[in-house]
Amino acid sequence: MAYLNDHYLKLKAGYLFPEIARRVEAFCEQHPDATTRLIRCGIGDVTEPLPPAVIAAMHKAVDEMARRETFRGYGPEQGYEFLRHAIAQNDYRDRGLEVADDEIFVSDGSKCDCGNILDILGCENRVAITDPVYPVYVDTNVMAGHTGEADEAGAYAGIVYLPCTPANGFVPEPPKGKVDLIYLCSPNNPTGAAASRAQLEAWVNYALTNKAIILFDAAYEAYTADPTLPHSLYEIPGARQCAIEFRSFSKNGGFTGTRCAFTVVPKSLMASTAKGEAGSLHPLWLRRSTTKFNGVSYIVQRAAEALYTPEGKAQVGALIDHYMGNAKILRQGIKAAGLTVFGGVNAPYIWVQTPAGVTSWRAFDRILTEVNVVITPGSGFGRNGEGFFRVSAFNSRPNAEEVARRLQELKW
Amino acid sequence: MAYLNDHYLKLKAGYLFPEIARRVEAFCEQHPDATTRLIRCGIGDVTEPLPPAVIAAMHKAVDEMARRETFRGYGPEQGYEFLRHAIAQNDYRDRGLEVADDEIFVSDGSKCDCGNILDILGCENRVAITDPVYPVYVDTNVMAGHTGEADEAGAYAGIVYLPCTPANGFVPEPPKGKVDLIYLCSPNNPTGAAASRAQLEAWVNYALTNKAIILFDAAYEAYTADPTLPHSLYEIPGARQCAIEFRSFSKNGGFTGTRCAFTVVPKSLMASTAKGEAGSLHPLWLRRSTTKFNGVSYIVQRAAEALYTPEGKAQVGALIDHYMGNAKILRQGIKAAGLTVFGGVNAPYIWVQTPAGVTSWRAFDRILTEVNVVITPGSGFGRNGEGFFRVSAFNSRPNAEEVARRLQELKW
Repeated sequence: MAYLNDHYLKLKAGYLFPEIARRVEAFCEQHPDATTRLIRCGIGDVTEPLPPAVIAAMHKAVDEMARRETFRGYGPEQGYEFLRHAIAQNDYRDRGLEVADDEIFVSDGSKCDCGNILDILGCENRVAITDPVYPVYVDTNVMAGHTGEADEAGAYAGIVYLPCTPANGFVPEPPKGKVDLIYLCSPNNPTGAAASRAQLEAWVNYALTNKAIILFDAAYEAYTADPTLPHSLYEIPGARQCAIEFRSFSKNGGFTGTRCAFTVVPKSLMASTAKGEAGSLHPLWLRRSTTKFNGVSYIVQRAAEALYTPEGKAQVGALIDHYMGNAKILRQGIKAAGLTVFGGVNAPYIWVQTPAGVTSWRAFDRILTEVNVVITPGSGFGRNGEGFFRVSAFNSRPNAEEVARRLQELKW
Repeated sequence: MAYLNDHYLKLKAGYLFPEIARRVEAFCEQHPDATTRLIRCGIGDVTEPLPPAVIAAMHKAVDEMARRETFRGYGPEQGYEFLRHAIAQNDYRDRGLEVADDEIFVSDGSKCDCGNILDILGCENRVAITDPVYPVYVDTNVMAGHTGEADEAGAYAGIVYLPCTPANGFVPEPPKGKVDLIYLCSPNNPTGAAASRAQLEAWVNYALTNKAIILFDAAYEAYTADPTLPHSLYEIPGARQCAIEFRSFSKNGGFTGTRCAFTVVPKSLMASTAKGEAGSLHPLWLRRSTTKFNGVSYIVQRAAEALYTPEGKAQVGALIDHYMGNAKILRQGIKAAGLTVFGGVNAPYIWVQTPAGVTSWRAFDRILTEVNVVITPGSGFGRNGEGFFRVSAFNSRPNAEEVARRLQELKW
């Protein structure tokens, strides 16, 4: 009989968000009256419409597809030059960072990229992952066979977990021992913490010393409000020798349903063959892209390009201001409810400590059933997420205000 | 030092189409005068604009994204119910085939799916691949470490090659020995051959007997003209127990630059764990989809849905008629040039035997430089593709007529 990939059988329960969806659905079936009252602050999904510059660009691109003379078939798998150039110029070179157009790989999502990047990396790598963490980093390593079984707390053998706690401000220091791959996310999902320049310098120095690679997820870069914080890991000297950066248009342009993102693979980034020879990862990622991917829809690439026009930039700025305004209201409301609050200043997520003795899922269930708000239980992000829950600021202003009010109603 | 995936280093040269692009670019640089004369019949890329029903659906969907009330963020990773239902109903149930909506997984391309499917299958599987073949099946197995090194002819150790020759009408019989995974593509890229019901029955019987899985690529299903030929492998009894089917909107709706496809994973399809227990593959593919993918752009899914409306179906029919009209003209022209021709009747590809002693790349270079037409050298598809070249019927009518004329000019 043909074999399946046994590593999948190690995965615990469902992916976090499907499990939340299941509980919410069950609640709504039992309480149809509460359904209209339900406010979702769980999954980090944007709520505001696409910027007008994007809408105009997409209508134009659709019309191009309607005429033979301007129709577009297969594009370059790694993205159209017009978009790669706009990204490299605006997000990097205009900020004084050296990134070439052909180091940008346009994709349909950072979630995909964070998983797919493992294709070009060896199975021998020792992997370090923060805890709590975006579950995709862990699960894709499990699927790829880079771990052993999970223990009762859900921690997989073979992964080096880096605890993120109030004590370290949710930004871990490099480990004492040697690891080869490190997943970092800043501004952080789920904790809302943003790493300082000094903290990122420590990580780049660790990676250079240990010849490790940092997989830097900067999907929330646009929410960096503090002017002293880096927007890209490439602001740190040496990062081009040790880091791949993932960016997305989901949370700045509101592309969660439109789908566009990109990955930066510097040509100077090397890894080792099994024989110990150094090889560049850039051609491997290019080969993967051309062989296992067919590029992002032309219409969507034109949509992403529009985010870099003056109008697009202003409209993205307004979206960020809107969500960060929500974050401020939520922070204040949750504080007023007597709970301890982290994040929500340089990130659209508020990370809330549950009252003593209340588990994350217990908090989830009470908030759902008593005040009809969906949050995300912290334990779904890892062992050190237990005792916390995440509140997303992606919402309308009235909803954010209502959630802030309702969370004060709840008596723990 | 972090390790790279050594298996990538086994890959020979570039992926076929980038290599063609490189040679064409070099020729155009040296002969700028010939550039305007150049006609591309190489890569199988559609040339005609998107159907009006699709254009209208996309404009409507773009407008929905512009208003808060109708905006769509994250959708279900495996595809919106409206599209999964339209596919299962129209492509399967209306033809008397049992396929449930939730056995349809909407994706951004069959190329991606054909590669990604290996994620859920074990490394122990013995893989059979036709020769010649769409290079993606081979290359993705090499990348995943399922092969040894390639020999001088480009054949990888560990793969069971199934020769497709004029003697078997380019449709191989099942092997005598046991294999676990079989890639079949019908109507075939590159040979243009279409498997008969009896041939597919033989394969399904082989798979059931050997508990093997058929990965059935039906991207060119819409070009099946002969009414006796199956459109889906699920027309063969037992196929739901042994086959995954890949379909695409690229070649029927003209979506090569729009990006939408789907994969059918029947819930009745089982594979073995390492311990020898049977497990269903459907939940594994669902887990992969939700963890490593974020779904296809909402706008694109609405575009694909429009292909199933009465207008959409009529417009797709007209596109197929157009390309198959080209195929007929090309077949006749190439025959008149004295060459032996296969395919082009139930597929948009004509598979041409080169004159005695002329290699595929030599034919490519002569056709490019002497009559300024880009074809695809057969040897790029495998050892048994040597001595053939592929002509794509994806073109305008005047271009197809001009190519038919020019190929008669060329004196071998």
